[in-house]
Amino acid sequence: MSSEIVFYDIPGKSDETKAWSPNTWNIRYALNYKGLKYRTEWVEFPHIESVCKKIGAPATGTKADGVTPYYTLPVIFDPATNTAVADATTIADYLDKTYPSKLLFPPGTRGLFGAFDALSSSIVMSPLFLLVVLPTCHVLNPISFEYFYSTRTTLLGTLEEVAPDGAEKTEKLWNELEAGLAKTASWFKANGNTPFITGDAPSYADIQIAGRLVWAKVVWGKDSKNWSRLRDLDGGRWGKFLDQFDKYSAVDL
Amino acid sequence: MSSEIVFYDIPGKSDETKAWSPNTWNIRYALNYKGLKYRTEWVEFPHIESVCKKIGAPATGTKADGVTPYYTLPVIFDPATNTAVADATTIADYLDKTYPSKLLFPPGTRGLFGAFDALSSSIVMSPLFLLVVLPTCHVLNPISFEYFYSTRTTLLGTLEEVAPDGAEKTEKLWNELEAGLAKTASWFKANGNTPFITGDAPSYADIQIAGRLVWAKVVWGKDSKNWSRLRDLDGGRWGKFLDQFDKYSAVDL
Repeated sequence: MSSEIVFYDIPGKSDETKAWSPNTWNIRYALNYKGLKYRTEWVEFPHIESVCKKIGAPATGTKADGVTPYYTLPVIFDPATNTAVADATTIADYLDKTYPSKLLFPPGTRGLFGAFDALSSSIVMSPLFLLVVLPTCHVLNPISFEYFYSTRTTLLGTLEEVAPDGAEKTEKLWNELEAGLAKTASWFKANGNTPFITGDAPSYADIQIAGRLVWAKVVWGKDSKNWSRLRDLDGGRWGKFLDQFDKYSAVDL
Repeated sequence: MSSEIVFYDIPGKSDETKAWSPNTWNIRYALNYKGLKYRTEWVEFPHIESVCKKIGAPATGTKADGVTPYYTLPVIFDPATNTAVADATTIADYLDKTYPSKLLFPPGTRGLFGAFDALSSSIVMSPLFLLVVLPTCHVLNPISFEYFYSTRTTLLGTLEEVAPDGAEKTEKLWNELEAGLAKTASWFKANGNTPFITGDAPSYADIQIAGRLVWAKVVWGKDSKNWSRLRDLDGGRWGKFLDQFDKYSAVDL
């Protein structure tokens, strides 16, 4: 039996967009940073539930009815411990516990990460999600497009109207995102402007920021006006920040 | 010349309530934890500005007009460096830099503390402030009472109506506070339920939580129903948490 970890991710339709999901990017970065051997299984949206059930990965929440289990990726299956783990942060905790070299949560930071995670989700992820939800649909294969487009339309209404290019409401989302990233930048500055938020090596908080940035870069396209705008915020901080993750970005296509 | 740090605090009217302010408690805890020699100068609210100007402590913000400098305590004056420092977190940074033994911000945590600070202010401090603003008035000497009562009334309306005992809106504030503290408790749990949020020793994030708890305990009274309710939340976590600070609680009356 192979001892490789199996990493489950949702594919985009081309090599450039194959890896796009922010939450699964977190785990790719984590695995690459820790130097763990793994292979990727690509799972289309409508098949996530059956794959999770097959390998014994738990649901990570419930559907809108508050009862029906809801299955999401990333998930990993680790043959070394015969364990399936779901939910990005839970996987990061598992990896640190099982493979404690190159900790994703340096000593003393796991509690404060909880606050970072909650606030960053609100001030960065919320506006970013609305800005990239439509271009995200367009990198998916037809079977996942149909699933993602219809479920997100149920949540948000017509996706084409959520953040149309140049609309006033789109600019408002940008302003929110800019404020959230400026606040995030202030936390780096408070730590002495270290390359990563906890110091000289990436921690899971950094990985989470990078996962969101790379998502925007991939679904907008690296040469797009939108990516250029985001990259250049806070004096070009975010483009340079993401560049630091190039060495942890290998995708197992 | 004495090498003692001078610590400026706002007095309450009795020995039991002499030290009441959450933000100045942060610095008392910090000085006591680090074992630094200091003496306390007690300054009534209307005199804060002139004292700050005399020792060269900067304003920490502006008044409602957005222009007039606003002076607050805590402030310290350190004769060893001939420096006046204002604003609790800025003082904590100064103390760590100048007296690096027993760090208030353990390595790698200062960036994440920024997120903790911002979120905790919103989910814990905001509802707590409204619950304790009136009892806070009643621990002050007449000269500070008049100043504090009138400035806070300008902000919030009649203080007696902000959170009257037993009112529906008071219960709503309690629910907010309980949710904020439950979230805070979840961050301790994520760090393995260590005694303090960053581990086995108090960090400035812990001190900030303790400063808020001791404020409520002092202005409500340690035998009050309200303090009993707060202390017992999350399975008695917060009373026990604050007890850990007894050894750093000496007040220079």
